[in-house]
Amino acid sequence: MNIEEKFATLGVDNAPGQESLRKDHSLDLRGPALDGIAVDFSHGDVDAHKPTPGSLGLFTEGVLLTGAGQAYTPYRGKSSILESLAPRLSGFTGAAIDPYSELILTPGTQGALFLAVGANIMPGDKVAIAEPDYFANRKMVEFFHGEMIPIPLVWQTQRDKAGLDLAALEKAFQAGARLFLFSNPNNPTGCIYSADEIRSIAALAAAYGATLIVDQLYCRQIYDGRKYTHLCAESERPDNLITIMGPSKTESLSGYRLGAAFGTAAVIDRMEKLQAIMALRCGGYNQAVFECWFNEPEEWLAARTEAHRQIRDDLMAVIDSVDGVSARPTEGGSYLFVTLPELDVSLHEFIRIARAHAAVTVTPGTEFGPQFHHQFRINFSQDHDAAVDAMRRLFRLMELYRK
Amino acid sequence: MNIEEKFATLGVDNAPGQESLRKDHSLDLRGPALDGIAVDFSHGDVDAHKPTPGSLGLFTEGVLLTGAGQAYTPYRGKSSILESLAPRLSGFTGAAIDPYSELILTPGTQGALFLAVGANIMPGDKVAIAEPDYFANRKMVEFFHGEMIPIPLVWQTQRDKAGLDLAALEKAFQAGARLFLFSNPNNPTGCIYSADEIRSIAALAAAYGATLIVDQLYCRQIYDGRKYTHLCAESERPDNLITIMGPSKTESLSGYRLGAAFGTAAVIDRMEKLQAIMALRCGGYNQAVFECWFNEPEEWLAARTEAHRQIRDDLMAVIDSVDGVSARPTEGGSYLFVTLPELDVSLHEFIRIARAHAAVTVTPGTEFGPQFHHQFRINFSQDHDAAVDAMRRLFRLMELYRK
Repeated sequence: MNIEEKFATLGVDNAPGQESLRKDHSLDLRGPALDGIAVDFSHGDVDAHKPTPGSLGLFTEGVLLTGAGQAYTPYRGKSSILESLAPRLSGFTGAAIDPYSELILTPGTQGALFLAVGANIMPGDKVAIAEPDYFANRKMVEFFHGEMIPIPLVWQTQRDKAGLDLAALEKAFQAGARLFLFSNPNNPTGCIYSADEIRSIAALAAAYGATLIVDQLYCRQIYDGRKYTHLCAESERPDNLITIMGPSKTESLSGYRLGAAFGTAAVIDRMEKLQAIMALRCGGYNQAVFECWFNEPEEWLAARTEAHRQIRDDLMAVIDSVDGVSARPTEGGSYLFVTLPELDVSLHEFIRIARAHAAVTVTPGTEFGPQFHHQFRINFSQDHDAAVDAMRRLFRLMELYRK
Repeated sequence: MNIEEKFATLGVDNAPGQESLRKDHSLDLRGPALDGIAVDFSHGDVDAHKPTPGSLGLFTEGVLLTGAGQAYTPYRGKSSILESLAPRLSGFTGAAIDPYSELILTPGTQGALFLAVGANIMPGDKVAIAEPDYFANRKMVEFFHGEMIPIPLVWQTQRDKAGLDLAALEKAFQAGARLFLFSNPNNPTGCIYSADEIRSIAALAAAYGATLIVDQLYCRQIYDGRKYTHLCAESERPDNLITIMGPSKTESLSGYRLGAAFGTAAVIDRMEKLQAIMALRCGGYNQAVFECWFNEPEEWLAARTEAHRQIRDDLMAVIDSVDGVSARPTEGGSYLFVTLPELDVSLHEFIRIARAHAAVTVTPGTEFGPQFHHQFRINFSQDHDAAVDAMRRLFRLMELYRK
């Protein structure tokens, strides 16, 4: 394999946010264009759900008051911010976190994931990945020359657990996988792993000496009083465990590129070494914004979660009203993974048509696993009315393509 | 090799900016502590030389006025910023740059370097690296499982060229290297490649089908009316060429983590794919700050360069006054690579002593090549008087350790 062949598999053409760069070929447009407010469901809308109050002020203070001491920090992050953030993350998750040895600040949670994976894979290593799961996971494994073992997540029919195939996970460990990477809440389905599932994953990893990377990006935004289990706080855990969080989603701070990873000191050390050659550090001034994370005004999180629950419910009502269309109601986060009936155009073709003819952008299921030809993902952190109307438009258009 | 062994070689303990995390063992301190303003020469001081006027205002506008359109951008950067920046980079370098296919915005120039190297190395590939050169270069090659071929830079005695061993470069290409990565002005020596050298490098790379990555981070800050040759504007160039620049140094915008790479479209495409899984993008809000780059107030660059020339001259006077100490006067950028006489403690030990006993932080030469046991690098973008006094303290202390 040469470098061109290696990168040929790492496509970004269908990735969220890249749609504007596509050179669309001629599309099979049917019926009149459906007018309405354009909605880009490929990511959240931080105009509709604003960044955490005070975030820009913290950035500005960092530039003007702290100055050079904020611009340059150790690679793992500014010590005073690590000291301040670690107890807040501990308080939320229930895990003990030493600020100096067990925590690193990164350019977004994507940066944290890349560092965690890059610090744990050698070429040829087998890596277990849930399927469906965050699209970058598989790409990172490919980039680092790992060998992916997909672990099915049978999410559709479950309600009290995510539906991970634990037997398949054990089989992957038996086959030599020493790393398992998964998101909880799951991206793209929005389902939450049960306490039993989390304990089983932890026990299996411990038994086989495997490393776990748990992407908890959306773990603050849980609906309907559901219980969320932090693997990092379980008494039985593997020796090597990295938990990843960040304020890009619920907190709408994605534009600042802030992420955090905490866990096993030896792994955090390796992640810092990689960060030193990757991007040096999480943006120095940007780090100042961490101070508002887990420090939001009283009731802020409850109000944000409630606003998103309302959008979820009203989108689910739209979804449930269409014959042959289904989705598991989101349990945590802002994603819905919607299953479509058979169409007479391909999924990718229909998604391009929806963008061109109904001003609705969604992400194809194939980004989350090659077999998801009948699914698309939406991030419903959008203006409520615009989102509901956009989903209605999409399904109205879909009727013209139903087989 | 396992993952622990791989990372064991990627040390960051002696890297610039990491000094505050060191757990120093007991040091052989001699004489009284030398008082003075602490100076950290490991990087520039953005309090002494302020960020470009208007930079914070652009960031704030990006957050408040552009909002969601600034927070999320395509992975390679916001289209309007690419469109605006490309002609300015073309105007400066003389190279044609298509904004849509030949330019990518990155989290700092470190991010650009990592993407460029990661998009051009497969495990086992031979890579030519100048020595001395930027410390991360060798680490990136190791991280990506490349095999480094050092190309000596005989900088000490030259004045009209950098002193790259072109015969060694051709030999490396003959031995199979298909990538050469170098900085111009050179980091750490501050010397500039002559037009002849640049043309020879370009011709050799073209002849052997090699890819060039040229790190031009400090190319706006050239002293004494010297001619700087942009390889990207030469008529004879290799097919695969990436040029890297950014406003972190001369412009003191490091805290925003901004970098840019331009060149061969196919390589930029691969870099974007890697950026998509590395950190998604250069921080969205941060990208707004690019608007002040190559858009500075009239005379701003001249004044900044002149201030640094003055510091260079006054530091060179200190260096020249000490027996057995030498440095090649900086031709571009803010680095001096200072050669010390034999001491009766190791270089690393002396550097720790200088930090503890004279409040002066410098970077050991061994970060730039394993053989540089008698050198240290300073970034003299500091307060003028504090810098001159700090260098005097360092050499006064050094006398107590001279062999």
